[in-house]
Amino acid sequence: MRTALLQSSGRPGSVAGNIEVLDAAAGRAAAAGAGLLIAPEMFLTGYAIGADTARLAEPADGDSADAIAELACRHGLAIAYGYPERDGEAVFNSAQLISADGTRLANYRKTHLFGCFERDHFAPGDRPVVQAELNGVTVGVVICYDVEFPENVRAHALAGTDLLVVPTAQMHPFQFVAESLIPVRAWENQMYVAYVNRVGREGEFEFVGLSVLAGPDGVARARAGRDEELVLADVDPAFLAASREANPYLKDRRPDLYGALV
Amino acid sequence: MRTALLQSSGRPGSVAGNIEVLDAAAGRAAAAGAGLLIAPEMFLTGYAIGADTARLAEPADGDSADAIAELACRHGLAIAYGYPERDGEAVFNSAQLISADGTRLANYRKTHLFGCFERDHFAPGDRPVVQAELNGVTVGVVICYDVEFPENVRAHALAGTDLLVVPTAQMHPFQFVAESLIPVRAWENQMYVAYVNRVGREGEFEFVGLSVLAGPDGVARARAGRDEELVLADVDPAFLAASREANPYLKDRRPDLYGALV
Repeated sequence: MRTALLQSSGRPGSVAGNIEVLDAAAGRAAAAGAGLLIAPEMFLTGYAIGADTARLAEPADGDSADAIAELACRHGLAIAYGYPERDGEAVFNSAQLISADGTRLANYRKTHLFGCFERDHFAPGDRPVVQAELNGVTVGVVICYDVEFPENVRAHALAGTDLLVVPTAQMHPFQFVAESLIPVRAWENQMYVAYVNRVGREGEFEFVGLSVLAGPDGVARARAGRDEELVLADVDPAFLAASREANPYLKDRRPDLYGALV
Repeated sequence: MRTALLQSSGRPGSVAGNIEVLDAAAGRAAAAGAGLLIAPEMFLTGYAIGADTARLAEPADGDSADAIAELACRHGLAIAYGYPERDGEAVFNSAQLISADGTRLANYRKTHLFGCFERDHFAPGDRPVVQAELNGVTVGVVICYDVEFPENVRAHALAGTDLLVVPTAQMHPFQFVAESLIPVRAWENQMYVAYVNRVGREGEFEFVGLSVLAGPDGVARARAGRDEELVLADVDPAFLAASREANPYLKDRRPDLYGALV
């Protein structure tokens, strides 16, 4: 499955502007044969938008979800994107996966909030593993800081995730995560990991780009630089199956010894 | 605490020869100010020694432990080394830490055996976290394949390990572990990790060297090449404390969500 990583900060504060950017990217991705387009954390609204976070938050089945479902159908590819999700009084930092026929396949609420900024604006999610089937690939979703905790990705591996989709808003000076940690997560869990970041300065943050699709061999299939970019690479289920055979980490685990972790 | 990594395969099959190599390395390490010298997995005997593994196995307090305690005292530094440990009928793939005054501080039995070769020759250990205090540093011990499981190193982090000592016998084509996974383990757990490998060809295996002392910032303090080498670097408790303050992974964990791991 060809996968497109939309490394972009879109138009912070403008939902309509961001849907336009997504529309254009979906057109380019589909033309390049992609079955899935992934946008960064909080792509729908912008990340560092302060009080607008709550104002612009929408339910998982809100107007913007409908608009994105429409453009997924029109371009004929699935879309994963980050957004602030409203559920009653609560606002979550969420990511949703919508299929090429416009079905809302999965909605994930970030479980590990990062720093004071996120704790001020979001409630934490409580469901660690959210998955959906897409073109024969089991796709899982986590967001940014979540992936830095090996426990979260291990839970996905144990649940059979083949491709972990990670919308992120990864900032200076934490580029080690994009450069080194993501390929190691893919290797140690024998899965593909697509880490899709914002770029440039936004409020107090400077996002570092460096989006990557890493394979189960720990090798980047595609790696973006520091600027806006659409990068594409393939998720290969046959390669993944062979890699898992050669690297039996999940079989060799000894869960009876891991009691301290819970 | 200055730490010396003895990247060497010694003299496979010759316990006396390996104790001589260790003696010489301890002299050089002590002269360079080291408080701890670490030798690779199965350094006492060699790794690919087939049936000799059982023949050369010794109890944790056997003659070779006495000889190594003597040279630790004589050179005035602690020594960690891998060896086949006999306990009744069972043989374990173990690593022992002996202090500068000759006390046996910690003995660890590899819990995650690698491949058919190790399963043929060793019983697995059942105690995941073995630690000792050394010059104000909490030292933990795991062996080779153990470190590739994020669960094992997380258990050490939760138990307060500052420096994880990892004797290894890491072979082609798994150099990704030495190059990338070790610095990520250090980063995500906010500890130092000393990964000390064998080199060259031995039986069916080709060891890749690339020993490394990685800091909690994911940066290698020292990195060996592919040949025999003694490399030195410092473990800095003040740097570690500041790094943990800036990277609160352990505080931000949500163990209530990690039930799938056990």
